[in-house]
Amino acid sequence: MKEGIIIIGHGSKLNFNKEIMELHAKRMREKGFKNVYIGFNEISLPSIEETLERMAADGVDTITALPLFIASGIHLTKDIPEKIGVPENGTRGSVKINGRMMKVKYATPIGDDPKITEILIEKVNSMK
Amino acid sequence: MKEGIIIIGHGSKLNFNKEIMELHAKRMREKGFKNVYIGFNEISLPSIEETLERMAADGVDTITALPLFIASGIHLTKDIPEKIGVPENGTRGSVKINGRMMKVKYATPIGDDPKITEILIEKVNSMK
Repeated sequence: MKEGIIIIGHGSKLNFNKEIMELHAKRMREKGFKNVYIGFNEISLPSIEETLERMAADGVDTITALPLFIASGIHLTKDIPEKIGVPENGTRGSVKINGRMMKVKYATPIGDDPKITEILIEKVNSMK
Repeated sequence: MKEGIIIIGHGSKLNFNKEIMELHAKRMREKGFKNVYIGFNEISLPSIEETLERMAADGVDTITALPLFIASGIHLTKDIPEKIGVPENGTRGSVKINGRMMKVKYATPIGDDPKITEILIEKVNSMK
């Protein structure tokens, strides 16, 4: 089994979203995670589809998809599941890319984590 | 001086974004922060403008604005600064609402924080 991670971003005409995606991918690699990729739902490149092709070409057969989004919305419940072979509102699925079948685990967005509250509080305190 | 906090959300047709905004506001109040409000850039209510009016009516004169966004984009560099009296790409400003002048400190989005990487890693590990 070859596991891979795709961090999924919203995409943006500005470059900030891409920089942040690359930052987290880099940090995950530094913490020992292998096969960490990024892909964007729209506008920015690589697209999710391009990244899935690359993962398939690299021999990945099990994907964890991590949406770097605050909250679930239409992108996360519908657009992205369609692209990664997960049923609407589902968390597991599979996708066949260029003849390679890959199992997909689809994580929830990050927004409800208590660490986010900590970040907000740090911002308030740092601006006093 | 009466300080207030406005957590600013993207807004969404679905309710997840609003629930998460309310969750962080509640957690901040539980940690002792007073005058914590939420406001949305679009679609969801209350809007940023409505919340600023409420803050002015409540006697707030110093606002910390916390965008609950992953990354800077057009909403954060242009739309929201206009609404809260901060220059484009700026971090400080002031806004006069119904005769009350309020100083505004405008925080950066949360996306580059190392805690976000920790959340992503926890999600991968929890889905093993």
